[in-house]
Amino acid sequence: MFGPFTNNTENKELYATFIPKIEAYRAKLQAGILEEYKLADNLILQETGVDVTSIPEKVLTKEELEIVNTPGYELVKQIASGELTAVEVFKAYAKTATAAHQLTNCAMELFLDEGLKRAEELDAYYKKTGQTVGPLHGLPVSLKEHYNYKGKVTHGACVSKIENVTENWCLTVEVLLEAGAVFYIRTTEPQTLMHLCSNNNITGLCRNPSNTALTTGGSSSGEGALVAMRGSVFGLGSDIGGSIRCPAAFCGVFGLRPTQKRLSMKNVTICGTGVGEAVVCVLGPLARSAQDIDLFMKASLDAKPWQRDATIVPLPWRDVPVPAAKDLRVAIMYDDGVVKPTPPIIRGLKHAAERLKAAGVKVVEWDPFGVLELAEICGSFYNADGNKGQKDGLAASGEPLCELSKIALSFGCGDEGLSAAEEHIGQGIRDKYRIEYQDKMVELGVDFILSPTYVSVATKPEKIHYWGYTSLWNVLDFPNVVFPTGLKCDPALDVPDRSYKPRSELEAYEYGLYDNAEDFKGAPISLQLTGRRWLDEEVVKAAQTVHEIVAV
Amino acid sequence: MFGPFTNNTENKELYATFIPKIEAYRAKLQAGILEEYKLADNLILQETGVDVTSIPEKVLTKEELEIVNTPGYELVKQIASGELTAVEVFKAYAKTATAAHQLTNCAMELFLDEGLKRAEELDAYYKKTGQTVGPLHGLPVSLKEHYNYKGKVTHGACVSKIENVTENWCLTVEVLLEAGAVFYIRTTEPQTLMHLCSNNNITGLCRNPSNTALTTGGSSSGEGALVAMRGSVFGLGSDIGGSIRCPAAFCGVFGLRPTQKRLSMKNVTICGTGVGEAVVCVLGPLARSAQDIDLFMKASLDAKPWQRDATIVPLPWRDVPVPAAKDLRVAIMYDDGVVKPTPPIIRGLKHAAERLKAAGVKVVEWDPFGVLELAEICGSFYNADGNKGQKDGLAASGEPLCELSKIALSFGCGDEGLSAAEEHIGQGIRDKYRIEYQDKMVELGVDFILSPTYVSVATKPEKIHYWGYTSLWNVLDFPNVVFPTGLKCDPALDVPDRSYKPRSELEAYEYGLYDNAEDFKGAPISLQLTGRRWLDEEVVKAAQTVHEIVAV
Repeated sequence: MFGPFTNNTENKELYATFIPKIEAYRAKLQAGILEEYKLADNLILQETGVDVTSIPEKVLTKEELEIVNTPGYELVKQIASGELTAVEVFKAYAKTATAAHQLTNCAMELFLDEGLKRAEELDAYYKKTGQTVGPLHGLPVSLKEHYNYKGKVTHGACVSKIENVTENWCLTVEVLLEAGAVFYIRTTEPQTLMHLCSNNNITGLCRNPSNTALTTGGSSSGEGALVAMRGSVFGLGSDIGGSIRCPAAFCGVFGLRPTQKRLSMKNVTICGTGVGEAVVCVLGPLARSAQDIDLFMKASLDAKPWQRDATIVPLPWRDVPVPAAKDLRVAIMYDDGVVKPTPPIIRGLKHAAERLKAAGVKVVEWDPFGVLELAEICGSFYNADGNKGQKDGLAASGEPLCELSKIALSFGCGDEGLSAAEEHIGQGIRDKYRIEYQDKMVELGVDFILSPTYVSVATKPEKIHYWGYTSLWNVLDFPNVVFPTGLKCDPALDVPDRSYKPRSELEAYEYGLYDNAEDFKGAPISLQLTGRRWLDEEVVKAAQTVHEIVAV
Repeated sequence: MFGPFTNNTENKELYATFIPKIEAYRAKLQAGILEEYKLADNLILQETGVDVTSIPEKVLTKEELEIVNTPGYELVKQIASGELTAVEVFKAYAKTATAAHQLTNCAMELFLDEGLKRAEELDAYYKKTGQTVGPLHGLPVSLKEHYNYKGKVTHGACVSKIENVTENWCLTVEVLLEAGAVFYIRTTEPQTLMHLCSNNNITGLCRNPSNTALTTGGSSSGEGALVAMRGSVFGLGSDIGGSIRCPAAFCGVFGLRPTQKRLSMKNVTICGTGVGEAVVCVLGPLARSAQDIDLFMKASLDAKPWQRDATIVPLPWRDVPVPAAKDLRVAIMYDDGVVKPTPPIIRGLKHAAERLKAAGVKVVEWDPFGVLELAEICGSFYNADGNKGQKDGLAASGEPLCELSKIALSFGCGDEGLSAAEEHIGQGIRDKYRIEYQDKMVELGVDFILSPTYVSVATKPEKIHYWGYTSLWNVLDFPNVVFPTGLKCDPALDVPDRSYKPRSELEAYEYGLYDNAEDFKGAPISLQLTGRRWLDEEVVKAAQTVHEIVAV
C-alpha cells in the first residue's frame, strides 16, 4: 500500500521568507470577517469536542433563519418570483458563513463586500428587466480555494503559490457565475490536496461542526464544514480519492462525485502538475439535499461547458424521475474486505438495510472483490510521477510537510514513480474491473451499491491513511452520492469492538482509530450510494429516495 | 520525430519452428477460395500497376452486379421487405470478395461456407417469423483480422499468435452479429498494426485495386481493398494513427474514425500490450457511402454496447439532419506546415474548394498550428512502453521485422520509452491543443476542417514514414470521415514539383515519394473532413453533403 518516500522538500531558510506572506494572507482573511456579520465573542467557543451547528441560529433573525433553512431549489423560485431579493438571501448567508468560519476555520478567503455588491447588481438587473440572469440567480455559492478566481490569488494550499494571482476563471466557476451565483467565500483544503483531512501551512486545520475535536475530512474540508453550517446553499469541491465525499460524510451533508469529464477541470490550480488520466480528478457539488445537487448539475451542464472545453464529454444533464422505493435495486457492501467498518458505520448500514427492505426496496448483499488491488493501483497512479510535481511545488517555498502529506506521498511507489508501461498495466487492470463491476451489478440485478464512505465516522485530525471506500470508485469512475442518515455516533450504542482481529496491519491501524467512542460523539453517520458509470442523474435521484427512506 | 530503436527481436532458429504454421495458415486461406466463387485463371492478372476494380463485373450476373452496386441501407430494406434473400445477397458478395482477394491479397481468412449457412439461417428465420433479426439482417460485413472471433484464430498479424484461438467475441463484432450481419472474410493488416501499409510475415502485402503496384495503405489494409472491390457492404477497421482513414483514402472509399470510447474495444488482439490512454485506438467502419457509415454506427450504438463495456461512453447515435450546402461552414487546411501535399492532393483540395464555394458553402482557410509537436507527442505515446509489448510479441516467434515496423518502433523515444511523468506532460500539451483547436473553430465560425488524409495518393509499398495528417486527429481525438473526390491521379495534370524546397529532411523524404507521376496513375484522390469531438453524427452527415458537392 505504501511505498518509499523521502522528505527532502523542507528548507527552513527559504520558508522563513514566506512567513510574512502567510501572515499577510491570514490577516486579510481575518479582516474579511466584517463587523456586521461577526459572531459575538461569547458565542465563539474555545473548548473543543462540541457541536456548533446550531450557534448561527442565535444570531439570525427569524426571516434569515427561514432563508438559510430553505433549500436552494426553492430559494431560486422565490427570488425569481420577487418574494425574496438576492440581497436578503445574501445577508442571511453572509452571517452564517462568517459564523461558520469563526467556529470551524473553514474559509481561506472571505470577500463579503463583493458578494453584497454582486447581490445588489442582480437585484437591480431583476428590477429593471423582470428577468433573472440564469437558473442560480442570487444563490450564495461557496468555492473550494483551488479553482482559479479571476483577479484573486489561487494557491491550492501550496505556500509557494501564495501570491499567484490567477487572471482567468476556472470554467466550472465561470459557468456558475453566469448562471447567477453569488460568490463571497473560498474554503480551505489541505496541503497537497491529498489528505482526507484539512491541515495546511497557510490557514491550518478546519474543525468539524458536529464535534469540533474531529476533522471535517478532506480535501474539500472547508466546504464540508460550511455547507453543514448552512453557510452556503451549495459549494464546489473536487475529488480524486474521496475529497468531496469524505467531508460530506463527516459533516453530514450531500456530496456528488460525478463521472469524470462531465464538469470541466479547466483552470484549476494545484501544488503539483496533475496525475495524468489513469485516475481523473472531478469537480462536484456539496449541498444539503439531493435536489440541490440536481439543481447544481443541471445549471452547470445546461450551459454546455463542452463548447468551451474540448476535453470534456457533451452529456447534457438528463431529467430522470425520482424512483419509487419499489423500483430501487440496491446491493449493500458491509465490508470492503480490506478494513472492516467501525460500529457506528455498521449500525448505519444495518439501519439503512432495514428501512430500505421495509419500504419495498430490493436489497441484496455485495461481495467485495479487488478492492485492495484497486486501492494500491490507485495509489500508484497518484504518485506515478514519483511525486516530482508535488515536491517541486513544496520545495519552491521549503514549507514543512504536514503529517498526512507524508502518507499521501508514500502511496503506491512513492518517490520511485512509475514508467509509462507500468501505468498502462495498471490502466488495463482498472478497465478489467470497470467491466467486472458493471457486469456484477447486471448479474445481481442492481442499479446501485450502498456502502460506507469511510471506515468510520469523522476521526481525530491527521489520522486517516486508508481511502479505499472512496478511492475504489475514483479508479473505477463510478459516480456516487454521499448522504446523511441523520444518525449520529452514540457512545452508548457504538461501542468499539475490541475482540475484532484485524486482517492486516493497515486494518489494525485504521480500524483502531475508533478507540474511545466518547471522542466521536455526535459525529454524523453517512453512507455512499454508487451508480453506474455516466449515470450520474440516476444516482442523484436514487439518493433522494434512499435518503427519504433512511434518514431519521 | 524518430527515436532510437534496436532490432533485437529476430531469432532465425525460433522462427523456423513457426514457418510450418505460417504455411498451414496460408494453405487454409487458399483452400477458403471456394471453387464456385473462384475467379477464372485468365482474369487473375499477373502484371502490376493495373486497375482491377472492374474485374468482378466480368463474373457477376446482372442481378448479382445490381446487388453489389446497391448501397447497404437500401439492401437491408429490400431484404426486410422480402424483395431479396440474404442468400442472394451473400452469393453476390461471396463472388466479389473471392475475386477481390485473388486480385489484391486482401483476406487473411475466408469462410464462405459459414457465411452461406448464416445467410440461410437468416432467411429461414425471416420466412418463419416475417421479421428480421436486426437492422443489419443479411448484410455481408467484413472484419479486419485482429478482432476476437469466437472459436477462430486471432493473431493481429503477430506470428507468435498464429495458433491463438479466441474463445470470446470482440464486443463490437458481436453487436454486428446480433444486428444480423453475415461474416465470411477477415482481412489483412500489417505486422505490429502500425504501418500505413500492409506487409506482414503471415500473408504478405495487399495490393491497391486502383493500381496494383501501389499500397492500399494501412493498417486496415484489407478492408480498404475489399470495400473498394465491392467485396463487402462495409467493414470494420481500427485507427490509432490513420489506420481506417489511410486505406479508405488510398482505395477511394469512405472511412470514419469516430471519437474515442463510442465503439467498444473489448476483446481485440494485438501484438503488443496496448498504448494506454494518451492516444486511444478506435474501431470504425469503411464503406462506400456516408449513409452506410451512418447505418453501421446507428446499428452499433442502438445496441447500447456500454451496457456490456463500462469503459465506453453511453452516447446513443443521434439522428441529425443532412446539412444543406448553405449551412455548411468549412475551413480548408492546404498544408499542415510539416509536409506539403503533393500535386494530386493539392488539385483535389482546390477542386473541392471551388465546388464548395460555388455551392454556397462558407469556406475559409485553416492556418495549421502545433502539427509537428502533436505528431511527435503522438509518436512518443505509441512507444511509451519502450516497445516492450510489441517486441515481446515479436520475439515470441523470432519473426523478422518488416521495413515499416522498424519505422513505427522508432517513433517518439523508440526503445527508451517514457516515464509516467513524461507521458503526463504530453497529455497536458495534448489537452491544451484540444481546447485551442476547438476554440479556433469557434473563432473562425466553422464546424468542419477539410484536409488531406495523407501527403499524397497511395504510395509504393512500405514507404510511408509520416502520419501527421491523420495522427493529428487521433491525438486530438476529433472525429473524421474520409471520402473519395472521384478524381484519380493523372500524370498529365499532377506533375511533380521539383522546384519545391522542402522545409526538413522528413519533408524531403515524404514529399519526394511522389517522384514519377506515371507510377501513381489512377490512384484515388481522397480528402478528410474533421468535425468537433464527440460530434461524429454531424461529421458523417456533413461528409454526405460535401461528397455530393465535390465528387466528380
